[in-house]
Amino acid sequence: MLRFIKRISKKSGLPPGSLVHVGEKKIEKTRIRVIDYDEASIEERELASVDECFPYKDTPAMTWVNIDGLHEVDVIQKVGDGFGLHPLVLEDIVNTGQRPKMEDFEDYLFLIVKMLTYDDDEGEVKAEQFSLVLGPHYVISFQEKVGDVFEPLRERLRKGKERIRKGGSDYLLYALIDAIVDNYFVVLENIAEEIESLEDRIMIDPTTDLLQTIHNLKRELIFLRKSVWPLREAVSALERGDSGLVQEKTAIYLRNVYDHTIQIVDTIETFRDMVSGMLDVYLSSVSNKMNEVMKVLTIIATIFIPITFLAGIYGMNFKNMPELEWAWGYPLLWCIILVVGLVMVLYFRRKKWF
Amino acid sequence: MLRFIKRISKKSGLPPGSLVHVGEKKIEKTRIRVIDYDEASIEERELASVDECFPYKDTPAMTWVNIDGLHEVDVIQKVGDGFGLHPLVLEDIVNTGQRPKMEDFEDYLFLIVKMLTYDDDEGEVKAEQFSLVLGPHYVISFQEKVGDVFEPLRERLRKGKERIRKGGSDYLLYALIDAIVDNYFVVLENIAEEIESLEDRIMIDPTTDLLQTIHNLKRELIFLRKSVWPLREAVSALERGDSGLVQEKTAIYLRNVYDHTIQIVDTIETFRDMVSGMLDVYLSSVSNKMNEVMKVLTIIATIFIPITFLAGIYGMNFKNMPELEWAWGYPLLWCIILVVGLVMVLYFRRKKWF
Amino acid sequence: MLRFIKRISKKSGLPPGSLVHVGEKKIEKTRIRVIDYDEASIEERELASVDECFPYKDTPAMTWVNIDGLHEVDVIQKVGDGFGLHPLVLEDIVNTGQRPKMEDFEDYLFLIVKMLTYDDDEGEVKAEQFSLVLGPHYVISFQEKVGDVFEPLRERLRKGKERIRKGGSDYLLYALIDAIVDNYFVVLENIAEEIESLEDRIMIDPTTDLLQTIHNLKRELIFLRKSVWPLREAVSALERGDSGLVQEKTAIYLRNVYDHTIQIVDTIETFRDMVSGMLDVYLSSVSNKMNEVMKVLTIIATIFIPITFLAGIYGMNFKNMPELEWAWGYPLLWCIILVVGLVMVLYFRRKKWF
Amino acid sequence: MLRFIKRISKKSGLPPGSLVHVGEKKIEKTRIRVIDYDEASIEERELASVDECFPYKDTPAMTWVNIDGLHEVDVIQKVGDGFGLHPLVLEDIVNTGQRPKMEDFEDYLFLIVKMLTYDDDEGEVKAEQFSLVLGPHYVISFQEKVGDVFEPLRERLRKGKERIRKGGSDYLLYALIDAIVDNYFVVLENIAEEIESLEDRIMIDPTTDLLQTIHNLKRELIFLRKSVWPLREAVSALERGDSGLVQEKTAIYLRNVYDHTIQIVDTIETFRDMVSGMLDVYLSSVSNKMNEVMKVLTIIATIFIPITFLAGIYGMNFKNMPELEWAWGYPLLWCIILVVGLVMVLYFRRKKWF
Amino acid sequence: MLRFIKRISKKSGLPPGSLVHVGEKKIEKTRIRVIDYDEASIEERELASVDECFPYKDTPAMTWVNIDGLHEVDVIQKVGDGFGLHPLVLEDIVNTGQRPKMEDFEDYLFLIVKMLTYDDDEGEVKAEQFSLVLGPHYVISFQEKVGDVFEPLRERLRKGKERIRKGGSDYLLYALIDAIVDNYFVVLENIAEEIESLEDRIMIDPTTDLLQTIHNLKRELIFLRKSVWPLREAVSALERGDSGLVQEKTAIYLRNVYDHTIQIVDTIETFRDMVSGMLDVYLSSVSNKMNEVMKVLTIIATIFIPITFLAGIYGMNFKNMPELEWAWGYPLLWCIILVVGLVMVLYFRRKKWF
Repeated sequence: MLRFIKRISKKSGLPPGSLVHVGEKKIEKTRIRVIDYDEASIEERELASVDECFPYKDTPAMTWVNIDGLHEVDVIQKVGDGFGLHPLVLEDIVNTGQRPKMEDFEDYLFLIVKMLTYDDDEGEVKAEQFSLVLGPHYVISFQEKVGDVFEPLRERLRKGKERIRKGGSDYLLYALIDAIVDNYFVVLENIAEEIESLEDRIMIDPTTDLLQTIHNLKRELIFLRKSVWPLREAVSALERGDSGLVQEKTAIYLRNVYDHTIQIVDTIETFRDMVSGMLDVYLSSVSNKMNEVMKVLTIIATIFIPITFLAGIYGMNFKNMPELEWAWGYPLLWCIILVVGLVMVLYFRRKKWF
Repeated sequence: MLRFIKRISKKSGLPPGSLVHVGEKKIEKTRIRVIDYDEASIEERELASVDECFPYKDTPAMTWVNIDGLHEVDVIQKVGDGFGLHPLVLEDIVNTGQRPKMEDFEDYLFLIVKMLTYDDDEGEVKAEQFSLVLGPHYVISFQEKVGDVFEPLRERLRKGKERIRKGGSDYLLYALIDAIVDNYFVVLENIAEEIESLEDRIMIDPTTDLLQTIHNLKRELIFLRKSVWPLREAVSALERGDSGLVQEKTAIYLRNVYDHTIQIVDTIETFRDMVSGMLDVYLSSVSNKMNEVMKVLTIIATIFIPITFLAGIYGMNFKNMPELEWAWGYPLLWCIILVVGLVMVLYFRRKKWF
Repeated sequence: MLRFIKRISKKSGLPPGSLVHVGEKKIEKTRIRVIDYDEASIEERELASVDECFPYKDTPAMTWVNIDGLHEVDVIQKVGDGFGLHPLVLEDIVNTGQRPKMEDFEDYLFLIVKMLTYDDDEGEVKAEQFSLVLGPHYVISFQEKVGDVFEPLRERLRKGKERIRKGGSDYLLYALIDAIVDNYFVVLENIAEEIESLEDRIMIDPTTDLLQTIHNLKRELIFLRKSVWPLREAVSALERGDSGLVQEKTAIYLRNVYDHTIQIVDTIETFRDMVSGMLDVYLSSVSNKMNEVMKVLTIIATIFIPITFLAGIYGMNFKNMPELEWAWGYPLLWCIILVVGLVMVLYFRRKKWF
Repeated sequence: MLRFIKRISKKSGLPPGSLVHVGEKKIEKTRIRVIDYDEASIEERELASVDECFPYKDTPAMTWVNIDGLHEVDVIQKVGDGFGLHPLVLEDIVNTGQRPKMEDFEDYLFLIVKMLTYDDDEGEVKAEQFSLVLGPHYVISFQEKVGDVFEPLRERLRKGKERIRKGGSDYLLYALIDAIVDNYFVVLENIAEEIESLEDRIMIDPTTDLLQTIHNLKRELIFLRKSVWPLREAVSALERGDSGLVQEKTAIYLRNVYDHTIQIVDTIETFRDMVSGMLDVYLSSVSNKMNEVMKVLTIIATIFIPITFLAGIYGMNFKNMPELEWAWGYPLLWCIILVVGLVMVLYFRRKKWF
Repeated sequence: MLRFIKRISKKSGLPPGSLVHVGEKKIEKTRIRVIDYDEASIEERELASVDECFPYKDTPAMTWVNIDGLHEVDVIQKVGDGFGLHPLVLEDIVNTGQRPKMEDFEDYLFLIVKMLTYDDDEGEVKAEQFSLVLGPHYVISFQEKVGDVFEPLRERLRKGKERIRKGGSDYLLYALIDAIVDNYFVVLENIAEEIESLEDRIMIDPTTDLLQTIHNLKRELIFLRKSVWPLREAVSALERGDSGLVQEKTAIYLRNVYDHTIQIVDTIETFRDMVSGMLDVYLSSVSNKMNEVMKVLTIIATIFIPITFLAGIYGMNFKNMPELEWAWGYPLLWCIILVVGLVMVLYFRRKKWF
């Protein structure tokens, strides 16, 4: 968190539209891939230079330009110039702390989505900003590093008989968003496993570390919610489709994505309730441990204190203590001690202390 | 929860409209039943194959096609093709993790409802997805397994004099939803009984297990709320009836169902308040037990510690201790001990410690 | 609560419009009273049979039909048929678990209100469902048992010079609602007294029973809120008066009732805040008692433990213990003991432990 | 609170428009003052009888009729008749438990505001109902007792060169509301001082009384909020000025008052957050005191218990105990005791127990 | 807080539009700077007297008048008269307790923003009121003292090739707001650092002081939120641009600022969640310390109490105690003591008490 805010605050004072990459540099060199397709044919290329992608812009075939790596801001700048993007769009693309949103620039739509992955090693959800520009015959996608969730989608494109080859650029946009949202369920699955493992540990060993873990989980869920919630609005804005770029027959698919985001937000809410419940169980578990400690102390102390007193009495040195002279005095005392102890034990039993 | 999320996450990457049954397989073979009726006659059949139900589609008589079992996706696909349903509708039918919703496809309405049952053995509410398609002269219902709450409804259909035989397919739809919502009250009754039994136990024996039970109950109520709350909206959308498929005279009945869902949500809210109150009582009960333990310890300790000190004094070996020589020294000490003990007891009484 | 849900759940499976009385049977025989009045004259009768009230329906004089007792459903059915009420209206009248609401059936308005009374013996708020049908020249009121808050209203009707005799049926409806809402203040007064008495007890004697009482009070307030809050909406719908049945000059009076319901909801909210505060005070009071117990234990133990140790030292049997031989050894020890004890006491004083 | 509800509940059963003064009688005799002014001249009078104020009604000069004391309901009735006020307006004026509100009666506007004062002796905020009627050339104000915050306003009226002398009755209304709202800041200042003094005491001496004080403060803030929040709406309704009685150039001033009420509500919210924080600090402070007590007990007990055991050992009367015979046995034991004690003390130091 | 409320309350009773500076006097003498520029040229001056700035008002070149210091109210008054500002605008400028807001006066727009800085010495966020007036060719800005965040902006103005030199006064306004909002990220960075340092300390040393610090942080976040949240609305109102003063091409930049404010509010919310989590961890940490203390007490006491009892037994003076005579009695007792002690230790180990 801190690290991110720090980077953003460094940008403070620069003129609007300044391209400063905010975020970690996750890749060495920017990589540009193009898929150009129509119902009949498909062409897949990796470009050496940005300029090669501009000719695709005005062909009737659909083009998906995929740019991995945002730190070479001059590349982004060139893309922006070539496709006529607003400087603020470019600024948002490289400044990776944006909330998901949809903006309509008449000639094109601009969309920001969060791509989530669960890092098993650190047990943490990682987010990457994924920006999309939808034009009449093209979609440009920007991501921070190579490696994504679109391989099945590319496969479908290559196969050639899928609905996607017949759809327009809006359907491609939908397919990309759908792939990302589908992937959220994978992340949720990991979180669900984390919650399950925590639930087992909480009853056995309620340490302050565990509390910290619960709070991290809670914070992660808040973070997730913040990544998904605004997406809902963005997709809904797309679906209502005021611009002519999204066709009505695609809108119905977007409504489906919309339903999924609501389902995800619902699941996140359920998880938050579960985690809150865990907090209560944790606190109760801690206080139960405390009670147990107190009970042991009380049982031991209340059994031995009275009989120790008795022993003390007969350790006194009074001249005139007839009991000390009795032949059966000592065994008798032991009897009394045992009776007192027994009475105590029975009393605690009735109180259900052990 | 986890299991469910897992299954959904497996679907990730597939193209939209892919029919993958998400949920447990609850039945061996898909079963298709048809009831075809008008005011005069009624026909009830179990079909061997899906294709047999298509002729019913265009007859003026009302037809209710009831399909039990969602795992044979090719059957669902055939139904979809035969009745002209959108691929996403079919996807939602077999993907049983949907929220209740209503969607208007002009030619037909699509409705998802949750059918709830209380499993006495596990003390748990089970939910089953119930999907409905309303066409001009037919209703198709999809559920996960045989066995439902519609038997009284079928009985009314067979009798022939009930209002339902004169109503259109929209009235049949209403009757189905009404039956499901009515059944929610049965589930609520079970929950109410669970709450009552918990309330009795909580004062007597506040264990951490009980806390877990309270949290499970809380979670169940959240789950219930999430099953009923969106239904409210769906029924309201039906009632406002923008499509021509729901007639105005049926709308008044739907408003009644709408009122019932609000009543159910209200009851659930009340239950949640009660369960929250139980949590407070639980915590207070635990801390009271703790206090009791502390009081016993304190009473025993504060009575015996001073008199043990006295016994210690006269156990000392000083040469010059005149009291030890007194003839009445020993009985006198006992008197002092008794007085000290009595004073303590009276003090605790005044403090209302026991 | 449980009992109520049980009864509703028994209705599950019946066709809509089935008249099943849900609620306790509070009266032996249904009682029907009619007041027929215009500016000039007034007639007050108790009817032997339902049929006698139908002639009043179409006279220009205003008629108030008051029906006490809802368990004889055939009587209700007859009234419904005679006045042309929708089956669902009748169902709502006898099913006494409805929320307050207003429904416009064009020819008549249907209104459900809760009549609240405070049962002094059980210290509990009791609610009774009060249903109203407003026609052009009549008002029909349904209640569960004889005995109501309308006696002053009837008195005003009889007197003949009051505004009410000149008003239409809508003004009568207003007067009935106003009487009920005015009575809510009486109930609130009782609750206020209960809260005051609790506040006194909570500082003196914080038992778990008291916690239970606080929670009951809280639940009662939630229940009250739920009885009054939807009434707000219903009255507001009446006031906006889309139907021609409520005249504009009556609307201004309904706005007054509306203001009262808001005032009541406000008061209930204040009460809830007070009860929540009591919960905090209760918990703090319990923990203070605990602290006091701990302090007593600590004071006694820390004073006596060191001096008991001293006594133990001089109870040892070492051959070579010069102090034991000293003539002033024993008195000296007592001095040391007193000094140690005094130092402890002063230390606790400074710590303000007692 | 109770007292107030009691009085309101006594009104239950009376016909609407009944003038019953609800609230304390705060003044002996109703006092009527009139200020009549235009840009050129001003006249200030105290009237002996109500009737004297009616002539002012229709003069083109602005008139401010100020009525102190609401318990002589026949006076209020006469004013109502003279100025043509609706019976419900009069009822609201004398029933002093109303929420702030604005009602538009076409010929005149009716406004209820709360006048707040901080009672230094009881450390409590007192509220008085202030009702205003705005007609074309007059403002009538009703308050419960003599003594108000308008003296500076009257002074400005008398001076003659201020904007107020040129404004219409709507500007006078604005000036009255503005004076009242300005005074809220004075009340907030007193509350702020109360909070500051509490913050100092809470760390030093967290008693249950203090908890009670915190809760009283919290309740006061809730009460304040409820007095100011609805005023916001009322002023906003005035400002939007649908009626012709408020001119556009006055609306801009009302917007300023509106901003002030928001600022006040914001401040109240901040105060509530501060008081909630104090509650946490209080609870933590109490539990810290408890911890300190426990630490003292534990330190004393754990130091002395082991060495007392040692003394007990050498107090035993075994025949064969060689240590007892050693010449250096006794001093050696003291050494052991000191070492054990020292080790304990060092251990507690390292644990930072003292 | 108190100090601020005090100052505002002193203003109570004054007529509207009275210029009384509310806030600390932060500068000795009011300083007026003017930057006048168009695409071709730029002129930068510090004015000796207010009157010198009026000629700039009607030139076609853009003019930025920057006034530092608000306590010389006659200067403000003169500016107001010269530029035709409404008295209430001037009142808001000098009364520095306003919420951020935007007001449209047709000829000009009035905007209030909070300028935030983090005071490292006191670890506190300081706010300064920044007021802006946007006219057709000028922007007037008012701040409480010299020193601001606009130096990079002035630099861009001087350079002459930046977009800002070609923009209108609305673009200048945007640039000013953007600079202020950008600076919020710097403040957030400081807060983030504070939170991080607290998180480290909370596990190690949970004192009541720390609790106070957490609450201060919480309050600071509430304060921040209240400074930023209304700005959102103000910027949005600007962007929607109903007045002709903001051009459409500038609106897109304002939308960007709007996004930033939402991002900031989101970050603040996250911080609040983190601080709330810290509170839980703090409380748990305190109660864990308590548990540890209790465990030490219990372990020591339960080990030594039984063996001290044994020592007490053999310290008794009964005539007939055979064990005392045994040659191996004493060593045997030690064995028993060691066994008892060991059993206890093992028991506590199994319970995981240490």
